Amino acid sequence: MITGKNYIGSQLKASGSKTFKTFNPQLNEENPWVFTEATPDEIDETVALANNAYKVYKNCTGTEKAAFLNAIADEIMALGDELLAVYCAESGFPKGRAEGERGRTILQLRSFADMVAEGNWVEATIDTALPERQPIPKIDLRKMLVPFGPVVVFGASNFPFAYSTAGGDTASALAAGCPVIVKSHSMHVGTGEMVASAVIKAAQKTNMPEGVFSNLNGGGVVVGGSLVRHPLVKGVGFTGSIKGGRALFDLASQRPEPIPVFAEMGSINPVVLLPQAIEQKSASWATAYAGSITLGTGQFCTNPGLLLGIKSDALSSFVTQLSEEIEKISPSCMLHPTILKNFTNGKKELQQQDGVRTVAEIKSEIAPNYAAQTVLVVNGKTFLENTRLHQEVFGPFSLIVECENEAELIAIIEKLEGQLTGTIIAEEAEIINYTGVIAALQNRVGRLIFNGVPTGAEVCPSMLHGGPYPASSDSRFTAVGIHAVKRWVRPVSYQNWPNALLPAELQDDNPLGISRLVNNKQTI
Amino acid sequence: MITGKNYIGSQLKASGSKTFKTFNPQLNEENPWVFTEATPDEIDETVALANNAYKVYKNCTGTEKAAFLNAIADEIMALGDELLAVYCAESGFPKGRAEGERGRTILQLRSFADMVAEGNWVEATIDTALPERQPIPKIDLRKMLVPFGPVVVFGASNFPFAYSTAGGDTASALAAGCPVIVKSHSMHVGTGEMVASAVIKAAQKTNMPEGVFSNLNGGGVVVGGSLVRHPLVKGVGFTGSIKGGRALFDLASQRPEPIPVFAEMGSINPVVLLPQAIEQKSASWATAYAGSITLGTGQFCTNPGLLLGIKSDALSSFVTQLSEEIEKISPSCMLHPTILKNFTNGKKELQQQDGVRTVAEIKSEIAPNYAAQTVLVVNGKTFLENTRLHQEVFGPFSLIVECENEAELIAIIEKLEGQLTGTIIAEEAEIINYTGVIAALQNRVGRLIFNGVPTGAEVCPSMLHGGPYPASSDSRFTAVGIHAVKRWVRPVSYQNWPNALLPAELQDDNPLGISRLVNNKQTI
Repeated sequence: MITGKNYIGSQLKASGSKTFKTFNPQLNEENPWVFTEATPDEIDETVALANNAYKVYKNCTGTEKAAFLNAIADEIMALGDELLAVYCAESGFPKGRAEGERGRTILQLRSFADMVAEGNWVEATIDTALPERQPIPKIDLRKMLVPFGPVVVFGASNFPFAYSTAGGDTASALAAGCPVIVKSHSMHVGTGEMVASAVIKAAQKTNMPEGVFSNLNGGGVVVGGSLVRHPLVKGVGFTGSIKGGRALFDLASQRPEPIPVFAEMGSINPVVLLPQAIEQKSASWATAYAGSITLGTGQFCTNPGLLLGIKSDALSSFVTQLSEEIEKISPSCMLHPTILKNFTNGKKELQQQDGVRTVAEIKSEIAPNYAAQTVLVVNGKTFLENTRLHQEVFGPFSLIVECENEAELIAIIEKLEGQLTGTIIAEEAEIINYTGVIAALQNRVGRLIFNGVPTGAEVCPSMLHGGPYPASSDSRFTAVGIHAVKRWVRPVSYQNWPNALLPAELQDDNPLGISRLVNNKQTI
Repeated sequence: MITGKNYIGSQLKASGSKTFKTFNPQLNEENPWVFTEATPDEIDETVALANNAYKVYKNCTGTEKAAFLNAIADEIMALGDELLAVYCAESGFPKGRAEGERGRTILQLRSFADMVAEGNWVEATIDTALPERQPIPKIDLRKMLVPFGPVVVFGASNFPFAYSTAGGDTASALAAGCPVIVKSHSMHVGTGEMVASAVIKAAQKTNMPEGVFSNLNGGGVVVGGSLVRHPLVKGVGFTGSIKGGRALFDLASQRPEPIPVFAEMGSINPVVLLPQAIEQKSASWATAYAGSITLGTGQFCTNPGLLLGIKSDALSSFVTQLSEEIEKISPSCMLHPTILKNFTNGKKELQQQDGVRTVAEIKSEIAPNYAAQTVLVVNGKTFLENTRLHQEVFGPFSLIVECENEAELIAIIEKLEGQLTGTIIAEEAEIINYTGVIAALQNRVGRLIFNGVPTGAEVCPSMLHGGPYPASSDSRFTAVGIHAVKRWVRPVSYQNWPNALLPAELQDDNPLGISRLVNNKQTI
């Protein structure tokens, strides 16, 4: 079923000579499939197809796009257990995670299908003419969002389904009306090809134009770089490291025609532990955070990598309890030997910094590619002065900072880089005394959480998955939830345009029955 | 009344030694006032003040911000005729234009005041909890737009009021809740200082924090560059040339923390003249376009610099009529000798290209700094092959392209760079035959106009002033209309947040009575 070839539109092609394989971290051996990297000619052909598809696909109705998105979900489900097996072989994740992530992917596709079927998302805005206005008549003006062109999506290592081939970036771009070219993540190309086959089948069943979706393989950075530089590509979605995201952002910004890149990158997701909560519910928070730190072997962008508290006996007990809980949990497998290597090196670098103590670390012998979860402690002053300690260690890891007082806690929050999430653990009675802490945290994060864990990002309209740089490359957008569509669209105005020639969304009689802003009043 | 100093918050300071003057193009002599460029220390002080102001100003209510914006409008009006006189002395524009542009500026300020007083603009989105959901409970999640920090605004040469000191960028950023630092345009620094004094007075009368607004002078690129590179600056608004806008975009993209730049830059605003319209209404369109080409000495970003028609006798008659109308109009003054020089050189460069004919050009002797309006003609093939002919000539200038047929017309439109506007001149009966032309044009522009002229950009929610690069640096936003606020805000989500601590916009009982998306249904 896995051919190792590229999907150039619906055609499987592999004219290149560069090949590579994926790796099974649980078995600690290469997977059997051989993948062929896309050639420069194949890349050109793919982008040209996407650009042609754009001219047709942008005009598809919401109903047509919804049928396509729902068909993708159906076809992914139709791949059944074989898809889950390949996913597990290329990620080391257990089958339960594969099922859960597949469910999330399906939910995302169907959410965007519902959104385009309903149609409100285009932000239709109408200002009718006032021919009698003095000194000059007011024109008729109408505005709505339209797709801006072919989008390149880079799959994420840690979400082979939900943030990859048919994940949130792809679903949102297809919902917008933009054709998608996926650069498959090199760690799970087989999973990618299978999901791509589902998208292609769905496109054919729902009569979508050839080139509306393609899937290219590449082992290094060449294929991705060529795609981002291609003049007909108009936007980029990426989930991964700061280094990778920034490189693509720089490439895109330096083009003769710069294009938007939405890169969801690093985050250490600070958690503030307020005194009363730690005093009263130390044990339950220790258990919850031991679970959150190690969930998915810590391979979440929302992994809580930084716990901030104010020095006290209660905080010391919490540290002890968390350490015990952490050491009780069985180590689990990482996605790939290089991910494990980065984890081990990153952790070591922090352990070697002055003033850092290791309070929990699995020492027993563990299986190849399994990660030894670790918790470190440092005082506030040291953390404030040493920005190396602010760096993300991707994996089951957290650094606890014992602050001298509230002022130091606020100073630390203000010095942090942008984050996806910020969490406050507090008793309701005490939180009112910490408005300075909350204000500082709000300014640094995309999502504020009260008495919970940051792992998990609900798929719903109110989700903001993004944040100030480097959590994301543009804090004005989200990667999760239906508003993620706004990354791939631009507004267009129609001035004194004949009613019959207007898009249905803007016509006088509102044939789609959508919510519109008419003469500055929201109508439903 | 004009001191020549910088407004660092409410303080007038001029510790630097670099000075410069503005120029009166009508009198062809320097204006009397001496302006002092801001020093690096003054720039640092200004940004630090803005950053402190941000912490307070971001929490101001819509009512408070509306009072501030309305007070700015009041204080500008209170400057009376003296302000108009300085405007005219620094721009060469007549008093009627000064009054008109002041009116537009006031309208913009009051539109944003109304927007924040009403409060719907924050896109409040609420998803309530489902504690019983399986397999895991649904959390409560709420999202709204918040200001992202101090914004630097660069004034435009051609709109000393409406796109400068207290123009659309400043009004939208202040409405968002972002403090503003204006880098005053060097051609109208006196006008800028007077308007700045009005903003400062308004800030004091409405108890805004010190540093919510500053106004810095600079003769070259040093002050602007330092502002854009400053780590505490979080966004940039610019209106001007492609060269200037791109330079700022590059600076901002290359920062350790890249920041968004909304630059509204060049556009030649293609106008498509369909055959029947030209046959039936040649004279009236010739008159309308002679007026649009020369309006404000052609110094509009929406000036119609490119007229596209299909070869016919009717088109030839239109060319003759337009040429006659153009030559009937008295030449007028440009903003500055350097603007005139760029106009003359740009025009000459195009006139010297192979295959280009000059069909209208004022030849009689004209006053210093006055521009000789010009119309050129070229055939479609030559235009298609020579992209130099696609360049903007800023001033009273237009190039008519005689296409061989519709296919060539479409090919030309597809090859154009991004544009602010695209216009179709047509009889209603014929437009249905040109859907390919319309589709091509829609893909290249921000605003489509039917049977009108592109000059003039109505201030209303449906306006899109922007477009694909290089019309603007990010086609996803507008510079005109209330939605311009979206350039300076980011969404923030609150997860399971205590109701009493939520911003009013997101509280259960909707105390502000705003329109919100609740569980994916729009409510009013």
